[in-house]
Amino acid sequence: MIEKLIDAIEKKKAPIVVGLDPALSMIPQHIMDEAIEKHGETLEAAGEAIFEFNKAIVDATEDLIPAVKPQSAMYERYGLPGLAAYKKTIDYCHYKGLIVIADVKRGDIGSTSEAYADGHLGKVKVGNTEFAPFNADFATVNPYLGSDGVKPFVDVAKAHDKGIFVLVKTSNPSSGEFQDRMLFGDEGVAGMPVSGASVYAGHLSNEAEDVKKPLYQYVADMVNLWGSESLHGSYSDIGAVVGATYPEVGEKLRKVMPKAYILVPGYGAQGGKGKDLKAFFNSDGLGAIVNSSRGIIAAWQKAPYKDTFDEYHFAEASRRAVLDMKQDITSAVGL
Amino acid sequence: MIEKLIDAIEKKKAPIVVGLDPALSMIPQHIMDEAIEKHGETLEAAGEAIFEFNKAIVDATEDLIPAVKPQSAMYERYGLPGLAAYKKTIDYCHYKGLIVIADVKRGDIGSTSEAYADGHLGKVKVGNTEFAPFNADFATVNPYLGSDGVKPFVDVAKAHDKGIFVLVKTSNPSSGEFQDRMLFGDEGVAGMPVSGASVYAGHLSNEAEDVKKPLYQYVADMVNLWGSESLHGSYSDIGAVVGATYPEVGEKLRKVMPKAYILVPGYGAQGGKGKDLKAFFNSDGLGAIVNSSRGIIAAWQKAPYKDTFDEYHFAEASRRAVLDMKQDITSAVGL
Repeated sequence: MIEKLIDAIEKKKAPIVVGLDPALSMIPQHIMDEAIEKHGETLEAAGEAIFEFNKAIVDATEDLIPAVKPQSAMYERYGLPGLAAYKKTIDYCHYKGLIVIADVKRGDIGSTSEAYADGHLGKVKVGNTEFAPFNADFATVNPYLGSDGVKPFVDVAKAHDKGIFVLVKTSNPSSGEFQDRMLFGDEGVAGMPVSGASVYAGHLSNEAEDVKKPLYQYVADMVNLWGSESLHGSYSDIGAVVGATYPEVGEKLRKVMPKAYILVPGYGAQGGKGKDLKAFFNSDGLGAIVNSSRGIIAAWQKAPYKDTFDEYHFAEASRRAVLDMKQDITSAVGL
Repeated sequence: MIEKLIDAIEKKKAPIVVGLDPALSMIPQHIMDEAIEKHGETLEAAGEAIFEFNKAIVDATEDLIPAVKPQSAMYERYGLPGLAAYKKTIDYCHYKGLIVIADVKRGDIGSTSEAYADGHLGKVKVGNTEFAPFNADFATVNPYLGSDGVKPFVDVAKAHDKGIFVLVKTSNPSSGEFQDRMLFGDEGVAGMPVSGASVYAGHLSNEAEDVKKPLYQYVADMVNLWGSESLHGSYSDIGAVVGATYPEVGEKLRKVMPKAYILVPGYGAQGGKGKDLKAFFNSDGLGAIVNSSRGIIAAWQKAPYKDTFDEYHFAEASRRAVLDMKQDITSAVGL
């Protein structure tokens, strides 16, 4: 799947992804009113308003972008009707030819992680009939439970030509509380490195026992391990999430994980800028894809776009914001 | 909410929770056949079979247990119809007076974690009408993103009299890959301890900089911080997950987190036994609640129950397994 993402990035000359993370407060009143007129003040109305909002933004930006990243939390917030909007959004984006990165940050133990992977990336059988329940192309995965929480995602991705992005260093202010903690080498850790990862095993085991590295760097080492059997050309289907808000960490991790595509959240609303992002990319202009959510989908409510676009032109504001983001990033990274 | 859980545990003399984690392979053929007859080979049939299976087990065990723990992965696996079964399961368990621990292991950055918390524990507004979308009583939370990923769950729980269990040390074999890593003190970590946590700030800052502790213990310290303003009597609404498969860690963490209720997965099918669990409890017989999933809901397929119960008596096998588990645990911990 990573080669399809790279192909789309190169064709559209846009290493960017639009985060479809709608809150009702971002949705123009006339869309909300229409949904409430149809469904009353119900969760169904919220779901319909969310989908109509997404659809308009996708219609206005699909020729510019390779991918979208719906954030499952914003849909789960509205229960089953919210999740119906999530599924409709994925299907609509596929219909428009976009790659869908499901930002679900799931992670559990073995067979339970497999169930998540089946549902979001893979297939399930009922009787003799097969279904792809959510059918995203990539999913984000939380590594806290270790290899047997992540490997089922790797395996399901491999079986269905999908990919994952593992959280390594997140964009939020307190991401350092645990992720930046300095760790000792392999001391006290059973079962490292994981078996079947011969490519990187030497790299890990050659380290002195008293080497200190932050936790995120150990996770990055594991991303290399997990991804070593999912290579397609220069990159692996197993990528990593590294926040735009920590460019010095991005620079380091770019070198630590040479084969991992980096999904970079935190651009725009969270403070990251194009010039800070060069370090996340390789010299070929590839290796990273930058997400913006609120900065694009709520552009009509924010300077400088709100002076030009009213609520009836929110999708055009999103298009303008995508064009500006694309310019900011491609001029910095030289794609 | 924690005082309601404790009250239910004491009334039923059962510090146990039944994990409603159904896989289709555990569901008797006659239930599956009936669902397929009604809905064809569809995801709706899977959802209906899952709900009917859960309902029979709840009916057969509700007088014995204080709580259930549905695992969201097993429902997401079947897409929207699976999640409809998840919601119906929560509602049915509430109707039967059971406390519902949503094993969702969510965790994201600030406003996104808030959206998850709203959806699973809290309320949302559409127009002027309020809804509790999933309305669980507790949710499990992944701490990898740090305080601003967890605090929204703490705040929403507080506002709606709900609770959370933060993953500290999980029950799976590779949980140690990251969670057991030995860490240095506060070195290199910005923003520790979190503000507003005066009760425990002294405890954290008095530590020597070169003290080594495993990651799970730092997370445990943070559980104390996060829970310090959610106390009800001896315990906090902010609890912790510590796997039954690591009793020596349970013994240590019981002391590190004196106010945190511990949710203990990994009993039974994953290998934990009642006598190993004493260390997770306080001397009053409280402080922990032990989960069994497959060991209860798939009892009819396993020794010794499969010799007595056929697929038409699967729920009675679950009841017998609950009685055996209750005996095993209460005799060890003395509730």
